[in-house]
Amino acid sequence: MHIGEIKTDKPSITLIEFDARGVTETLFESLEASRGHHANREKMWLNVYGLHDPTVMAEIGRRFKLHPLVQEDILNTQQRPKSDEYTDYQYIVARCFDFDTETRSLTSDQVSIVLGRNFVLTFQERATGAFEAVRERLRAEHGAMRAHGPDYLAYALLDTLVDRYFVMLDNLSDMAEDLEDEALSRPNPALLAEINRVKHEALVLRRAIWPLREILNTLSRADNGFFTADTRLYLRDIYDHTVHVLESLESVRDLLADLLDIYLSSVSNRLNTEVRILTVLTTLFMPATLIAGIFGMNFHTMPLLDDPEGFWIALGVMGGAATVMAAAFWRRNWLRTR
Amino acid sequence: MHIGEIKTDKPSITLIEFDARGVTETLFESLEASRGHHANREKMWLNVYGLHDPTVMAEIGRRFKLHPLVQEDILNTQQRPKSDEYTDYQYIVARCFDFDTETRSLTSDQVSIVLGRNFVLTFQERATGAFEAVRERLRAEHGAMRAHGPDYLAYALLDTLVDRYFVMLDNLSDMAEDLEDEALSRPNPALLAEINRVKHEALVLRRAIWPLREILNTLSRADNGFFTADTRLYLRDIYDHTVHVLESLESVRDLLADLLDIYLSSVSNRLNTEVRILTVLTTLFMPATLIAGIFGMNFHTMPLLDDPEGFWIALGVMGGAATVMAAAFWRRNWLRTR
Amino acid sequence: MHIGEIKTDKPSITLIEFDARGVTETLFESLEASRGHHANREKMWLNVYGLHDPTVMAEIGRRFKLHPLVQEDILNTQQRPKSDEYTDYQYIVARCFDFDTETRSLTSDQVSIVLGRNFVLTFQERATGAFEAVRERLRAEHGAMRAHGPDYLAYALLDTLVDRYFVMLDNLSDMAEDLEDEALSRPNPALLAEINRVKHEALVLRRAIWPLREILNTLSRADNGFFTADTRLYLRDIYDHTVHVLESLESVRDLLADLLDIYLSSVSNRLNTEVRILTVLTTLFMPATLIAGIFGMNFHTMPLLDDPEGFWIALGVMGGAATVMAAAFWRRNWLRTR
Amino acid sequence: MHIGEIKTDKPSITLIEFDARGVTETLFESLEASRGHHANREKMWLNVYGLHDPTVMAEIGRRFKLHPLVQEDILNTQQRPKSDEYTDYQYIVARCFDFDTETRSLTSDQVSIVLGRNFVLTFQERATGAFEAVRERLRAEHGAMRAHGPDYLAYALLDTLVDRYFVMLDNLSDMAEDLEDEALSRPNPALLAEINRVKHEALVLRRAIWPLREILNTLSRADNGFFTADTRLYLRDIYDHTVHVLESLESVRDLLADLLDIYLSSVSNRLNTEVRILTVLTTLFMPATLIAGIFGMNFHTMPLLDDPEGFWIALGVMGGAATVMAAAFWRRNWLRTR
Amino acid sequence: MHIGEIKTDKPSITLIEFDARGVTETLFESLEASRGHHANREKMWLNVYGLHDPTVMAEIGRRFKLHPLVQEDILNTQQRPKSDEYTDYQYIVARCFDFDTETRSLTSDQVSIVLGRNFVLTFQERATGAFEAVRERLRAEHGAMRAHGPDYLAYALLDTLVDRYFVMLDNLSDMAEDLEDEALSRPNPALLAEINRVKHEALVLRRAIWPLREILNTLSRADNGFFTADTRLYLRDIYDHTVHVLESLESVRDLLADLLDIYLSSVSNRLNTEVRILTVLTTLFMPATLIAGIFGMNFHTMPLLDDPEGFWIALGVMGGAATVMAAAFWRRNWLRTR
Repeated sequence: MHIGEIKTDKPSITLIEFDARGVTETLFESLEASRGHHANREKMWLNVYGLHDPTVMAEIGRRFKLHPLVQEDILNTQQRPKSDEYTDYQYIVARCFDFDTETRSLTSDQVSIVLGRNFVLTFQERATGAFEAVRERLRAEHGAMRAHGPDYLAYALLDTLVDRYFVMLDNLSDMAEDLEDEALSRPNPALLAEINRVKHEALVLRRAIWPLREILNTLSRADNGFFTADTRLYLRDIYDHTVHVLESLESVRDLLADLLDIYLSSVSNRLNTEVRILTVLTTLFMPATLIAGIFGMNFHTMPLLDDPEGFWIALGVMGGAATVMAAAFWRRNWLRTR
Repeated sequence: MHIGEIKTDKPSITLIEFDARGVTETLFESLEASRGHHANREKMWLNVYGLHDPTVMAEIGRRFKLHPLVQEDILNTQQRPKSDEYTDYQYIVARCFDFDTETRSLTSDQVSIVLGRNFVLTFQERATGAFEAVRERLRAEHGAMRAHGPDYLAYALLDTLVDRYFVMLDNLSDMAEDLEDEALSRPNPALLAEINRVKHEALVLRRAIWPLREILNTLSRADNGFFTADTRLYLRDIYDHTVHVLESLESVRDLLADLLDIYLSSVSNRLNTEVRILTVLTTLFMPATLIAGIFGMNFHTMPLLDDPEGFWIALGVMGGAATVMAAAFWRRNWLRTR
Repeated sequence: MHIGEIKTDKPSITLIEFDARGVTETLFESLEASRGHHANREKMWLNVYGLHDPTVMAEIGRRFKLHPLVQEDILNTQQRPKSDEYTDYQYIVARCFDFDTETRSLTSDQVSIVLGRNFVLTFQERATGAFEAVRERLRAEHGAMRAHGPDYLAYALLDTLVDRYFVMLDNLSDMAEDLEDEALSRPNPALLAEINRVKHEALVLRRAIWPLREILNTLSRADNGFFTADTRLYLRDIYDHTVHVLESLESVRDLLADLLDIYLSSVSNRLNTEVRILTVLTTLFMPATLIAGIFGMNFHTMPLLDDPEGFWIALGVMGGAATVMAAAFWRRNWLRTR
Repeated sequence: MHIGEIKTDKPSITLIEFDARGVTETLFESLEASRGHHANREKMWLNVYGLHDPTVMAEIGRRFKLHPLVQEDILNTQQRPKSDEYTDYQYIVARCFDFDTETRSLTSDQVSIVLGRNFVLTFQERATGAFEAVRERLRAEHGAMRAHGPDYLAYALLDTLVDRYFVMLDNLSDMAEDLEDEALSRPNPALLAEINRVKHEALVLRRAIWPLREILNTLSRADNGFFTADTRLYLRDIYDHTVHVLESLESVRDLLADLLDIYLSSVSNRLNTEVRILTVLTTLFMPATLIAGIFGMNFHTMPLLDDPEGFWIALGVMGGAATVMAAAFWRRNWLRTR
Repeated sequence: MHIGEIKTDKPSITLIEFDARGVTETLFESLEASRGHHANREKMWLNVYGLHDPTVMAEIGRRFKLHPLVQEDILNTQQRPKSDEYTDYQYIVARCFDFDTETRSLTSDQVSIVLGRNFVLTFQERATGAFEAVRERLRAEHGAMRAHGPDYLAYALLDTLVDRYFVMLDNLSDMAEDLEDEALSRPNPALLAEINRVKHEALVLRRAIWPLREILNTLSRADNGFFTADTRLYLRDIYDHTVHVLESLESVRDLLADLLDIYLSSVSNRLNTEVRILTVLTTLFMPATLIAGIFGMNFHTMPLLDDPEGFWIALGVMGGAATVMAAAFWRRNWLRTR
């Protein structure tokens, strides 16, 4: 049932119950352990890491009355971001990105958020720590966040994801600039493959943000009962952020497209340089070789041959011709190494 | 009347009647045989393979009161996917893809689905086995599927087709990656033709999915009496899948477009290498040839000529000049094989 | 008044009157001849070939009360396809294409169709025979067509035009494939001009179909009193055909765009081959020339000179060096003809 | 206040008053002269050439109660075509194009049209004569035009402008074809700059037509009280013309874009030719030079040296080698001049 | 809290109070100083330079009841231009551009405008002097501006920003033309990087204007209570200006895109020239070298060797061959320096 790479050994289920007065956190060791649990507070946030154990999903699905399609979508972690409205809950799929500093590449996980009247469920394959800041805000002593409904919590989670997009954007931008330097100084075909790889990563990021932008636009405009008018103002705000990320991402993509031109121009420049070196060499040696050939002819009557200085005069003419031609090239700026 | 390649010798007509209690399957040998048949169950699925016999279509059209245009569209197997609503049935055209592992190319057939209040008709030129899994689900002892109406059956058939699109996508993706390796290692014009062929196949696939996406979008949103609200949720789900396939297909198309750049860059890199070899050779031999020419001059007074070591000194100077130049190239990294 | 090339000497006016019982055809020699004519049947189709005689248009315009703008548009045969609705008639402009097999190019004529309550008028500059099949269907003994209204006749005429578009498409597709073969085997600048010519023809065809597609879409959706609901179903059908032609036309245009890449790559491949030949030649002759130069030096003490086999040894070394280098090239696959 | 190039020395103000019975034309020498003028007929057309005298605009603005923004827009002759509706008049900005046959370039002027209930005001910086034909139609004895309202006059003026766009289009098309010939026969960088210049002019033309098309579309659809239903039919007609010009303009732009490819291919073809000449020369001379070198070696025992025919044999071998190689090139078609 | 570069040391807060009778200006040294201030006139404009002191924003936010999201957006100076409507005020974000003549690059600042019923607040990080002209108009003795409401002041501020866009456009256009000259005369890879930099600046400018255009379109059409119908006419006017700037910007971007072609063509032209020089040199020296080689052969019987003029005849033949070939090149126009 679980479609996608398995990245976590054992599911980890955390329940955070909260209301204006306080927070209760519970880490369930097993499904059985959770059965005896009684609700402590008005609002709750259930977070699940690890999706490959189908019994967990089935149990949660049963308790929160999740539609079979929603359960299927949560388990299939290759979903495109989307938002589906059901009678009792709003189902939102988004993607959470990480940057692997070693391979200098983006990795991403699906984040499923189910927002009900008094609960939020979140599902991820891998524990990324992306939501730790939100947990901190819930735990904070005078946490204004606890006073808000679960819709504000859902907003805070989405906001966290969008903030990460800005970080990813910066990483891509840095990589693009490094590639530009390399394209100008050391063009080679491997670089082209690298440019295409980064282009592809920018595209993957774009594909995660683009539908989310549409989702946020819709959610922030229409009152569907799950988000209050006040929270919708905040959704509007992260909608603006997604528009901003997308625009900046276009800049990065433009830069990467320009890189190809720079690379090709760099390669063709190198060809010019090489042909130029060949031309210069030919130019410097050909006249000298001809002169040597001339004085190597076997005519009985030839000037200079008997002259004791003849040999040196001939060498001088060779050197002179080369010097004249080198000077001509010098004036045309051809002797620069570039 | 039949427009398109004939791929099946003889039409094969199968009737599957089903309701919550069970399934009855009948394979009709001929049209005449079918005339005496009496309905056994509430719901039925009539499947036809082979479309070139016009009497079969005419008979079915007459019995199910299909509009002449629908009959024409079923027989013309070059249709673009579309969905037309008639008073008594919904007519849907889609395409079923196969991957020929030998020629590494996609083949496709038109699938016509006619969904009535209590029947589903399907028409294909060739028996592909694509629907076998659906038949199995109908036959299954506790087949939940039999409890659903014919609209759910139509959904299941469309779902099967869309799942195949993902498989085709993977095949195209593999081919694109193979071509990338080849473009980097062995660029040749035949490769360019191959890249264009795969590009064309990706386009053919896209053209089959794009209109289907629109059809699914429309069917999943509007209640036209043929699909229940519950089934429409499932249509929405495969609509999401088509959007996902289309996006991934764009990635493959981008990759194929990039391939052209890689190919051209690979070719131009090769030109650079060849000019470089020419330059290196010229550089190593020209000075030596000049020196040989100099000592071949016929001046009476020339240094070294009488020196018993003169010949070897001259050879040494030749070798020295070549070595110095080779070293210069070495430092510029020109002696790499690439 | 007539704007466009004159292709017909003398206008030819044919009147076909028809109803469910039969058909009456009249060919008018002159305008005067037509004045005494009395209507024989309920429905009529007046066809005019040749538009440069303004009195014909004026007379017809007066009798059928055509708006001055419509008359002007009929005479200006460079119109973009369009559809204008007037109180008493629907005016439709489309284009009829022919393929000139000699020059391998498309030619096109404007077809103006005026659909009234009980008449259809058609105007063309040239008698192309495109509508002959429709005439045959009207004349057929049990002609179901005669039972339909003039709107069905107008549909049949448009259907005929759209079917021709498929033929044109095939012609363009064949030409594109021929050009591809030529680009791979014999790239030359004239080919590029030819590619651009075919691209332009594909564009001309597209421009004729694109607006017609919109017209058919509108006419098939909205009831404006000229087309019955039943005929509108048929219009929908040819609308689908125009969408299909347009998509296939995009494929041809893609192929033509790819041709440019193939052409350029073919040219650049040829450059590589030529530089390679130059390099191989230089490589084979330079060492030999150097060796000849060495043994041409005038040192008093040189090895081998007195050896009776010396000359042959020198030639052997020359041949050996060339062979070694040729072998090196052989391994790099450089001695292939391409 | 006047923004734009000043092209006229002195403003020229002409008043044409007309009704069904006749026309009265008055040319005002100065603003003062106009103050004593009394209206003669129902409808009037006031035309102003020359916009740099602010008092003229102020006076006209005051008399016809033009909004300050309208006055500003009339004086700023760099406006984008637009149409603004005010309570008492419709304000339309369009551009009038001329083709300078000497520099082969387009020039354009802003034409401001103010259409009131019984007047039309037109403003231009330069007297182009573009409206002379309209004046003639007003003056014509049985001038049907005089019977129409000022809205028809405004239509006639716009029609005149749009007709000029067709002429400009033809000029651009001719220039593009001339450039194509030159790109194939004499590619040079100045040509590239010329191609870009024509591309830019096509863009300038497009920018003048595109917004006008939108304006005509809006005016022809909506009844805003200034254009009668009948005149709106005529506006629809010129709307169709603008669509047609825009499409043809796209063809010209495509052709110009293709020109770049032709130019680059022509340049790269030339490179191939030059490398080929180099290769042919090297091929013809290298073997001969080697043979000369071989017989220049100083071995004591060498064949042919004592043969009185030896020299001629050697020359024959040189010529033979060159002939064989030339024949090989001939077969590969390399000796064509192209 | 402040996101963006800090460009100002100390916040500078200026209050301009105005009504039809006059203006009162106050520069607050500190927040405390402002606390004792009493309103003098009906309408006020509070301008803040420097945003990094959070207490200033907090105080102003508290007094004018700004929503926390608005305060956040004002401090985050990397916002995309946008317009948000709140109950008591309209919040508008735009960007103010400057051209740094030394580095020849654009710099930009965020301008936040809060328009209330009787006040305008403006926030900028840096004091650019952009609004000085508006202040002058407010101070002018017969200042018509003071009679208008704060909405007209907000319009005037936006108008000032849009006027600056035209100046930026001219700067970019000049830079593009300089680059074109350089691409034709001195192509080098650094130029390509420069072209890309200017392209990027044009994009940055476009991204500032594009959303503003949408904002102005919306504000000028809909009555939301903050802008009067009269002021909305003026907003429509600057909306037209933004459309105009955007179109001209597209021209500049087209020109920059063409520059790449010119650059690449210039580089490839240079390659042709260099290969040509190589070919000419080879052509001039190869025959001469061959002739020298021929007369350097050691045949006993050779013509001319004993001829006292032989040497000079040989030199003449060498010169003659070179002359003939040079003439051939001359006719092909190959000896031009270009």
